[in-house]
Amino acid sequence: MIRFYAPDAADTGRLPESDSGHAVRVLRLRAGDELQAVDGRGHVLTCRLADENPRGAAVDIVGIADEPPVWVGSLTVMVAPTKQMERMEWMLEKLVEIGIDRFVPVRCARSERKEIKTERLTRIAVSAMKQSLKATLPVIDDMTPLAKAVATLADGCQKFVGYCDDAIERRLLARTLQSCRDTAILIGPEGDFTPDEIAMLINSGFVPVTLGDNRLRTETAALVGADTFHIVGQLAGINS
Amino acid sequence: MIRFYAPDAADTGRLPESDSGHAVRVLRLRAGDELQAVDGRGHVLTCRLADENPRGAAVDIVGIADEPPVWVGSLTVMVAPTKQMERMEWMLEKLVEIGIDRFVPVRCARSERKEIKTERLTRIAVSAMKQSLKATLPVIDDMTPLAKAVATLADGCQKFVGYCDDAIERRLLARTLQSCRDTAILIGPEGDFTPDEIAMLINSGFVPVTLGDNRLRTETAALVGADTFHIVGQLAGINS
Repeated sequence: MIRFYAPDAADTGRLPESDSGHAVRVLRLRAGDELQAVDGRGHVLTCRLADENPRGAAVDIVGIADEPPVWVGSLTVMVAPTKQMERMEWMLEKLVEIGIDRFVPVRCARSERKEIKTERLTRIAVSAMKQSLKATLPVIDDMTPLAKAVATLADGCQKFVGYCDDAIERRLLARTLQSCRDTAILIGPEGDFTPDEIAMLINSGFVPVTLGDNRLRTETAALVGADTFHIVGQLAGINS
Repeated sequence: MIRFYAPDAADTGRLPESDSGHAVRVLRLRAGDELQAVDGRGHVLTCRLADENPRGAAVDIVGIADEPPVWVGSLTVMVAPTKQMERMEWMLEKLVEIGIDRFVPVRCARSERKEIKTERLTRIAVSAMKQSLKATLPVIDDMTPLAKAVATLADGCQKFVGYCDDAIERRLLARTLQSCRDTAILIGPEGDFTPDEIAMLINSGFVPVTLGDNRLRTETAALVGADTFHIVGQLAGINS
């Protein structure tokens, strides 16, 4: 089943250009054909194609269904992007498949990458959302300095930071994370956080954690962190 | 810290060609310099470079330390490889980082890829082993027909198959997998298993499972499966 992404179809009555071309030119849908679209905000729209304009196909919306999230508690993943952009791109694809609510690329003192193209990340997230049959698009923040990113987290959110230095006591994420709560997981740059950054994070309520005894690359750590959130929820009988 | 891979150094007294070039030409190590190597069988060798031959540098082994595995129970991951080889390659890299004992590419009736280069997979596994500071290289099987692969699993191994069809009752992997036991996790092709294959698997003791309500690509499912093994072990207080 192909699902289109049409964030504004309810207002404009049209598919966006990219999805119109795909529907009309690639899949050769014709006026009168039915298709499904998601708006990225948790709704699945059943539409009937009204014309075959590949730049913005008109659709009649014949049904709207809510698609509730499959997990309880929101999950924010914050990562200091690696130098190799390719690693960040597949990481984001996998994070969206596994299920996150928000992704924040953070700029740290030792970040190897100081800039990132939000637009490109969003395109990857849209594609992964469609492919994994979700109706909700995670929020993708612009690259944000660490302290500023930390300040955006809501009160009551449990906050974890993956940290490699043995000098600070760290807990195992799987045994520390509480299911069913809003959660933020922060993964630092390949050169790790500076002592000042770690002090600031602990002051801000972040719990230093490890993900186990296996040394993981930045992008693998982010994935394992998100997966831990879901598995702990599944084991509590909350998420499925 | 750089770790070299020298599977035969204890017998031959030399690093293999690839690692010799890296040591002598790239890192410019000189005779008398110390280096660490792993043999892929759980040993870390402390060596002193005896010459600077970039085709096979001679080493004196000055110490051998055991590096015990960080998890209990062996983990075999069996996957029907996807058409896009790139996806398989990063999956294997991530599986080695997260920790597996054996990887088996399986050929199923609906497999999109019928052949795979074991040598290339092994190179990726070696590189991921070195990068994630492990001393043990997972066994990488050649592409194996499904029934034959299943027959290689030891008695007493708990066996799970990720299956997408609602027609068969499936359990949630995280709630079904027992920690501390030898485990095999099988992920099928993008077109799923045939009914005959599923019947054969169930007959062979495989438990059909889901990994949760999120639809995952083949390579993501393999990763989440392996991660579930480790997290369940961590929560039982066995693995760390």
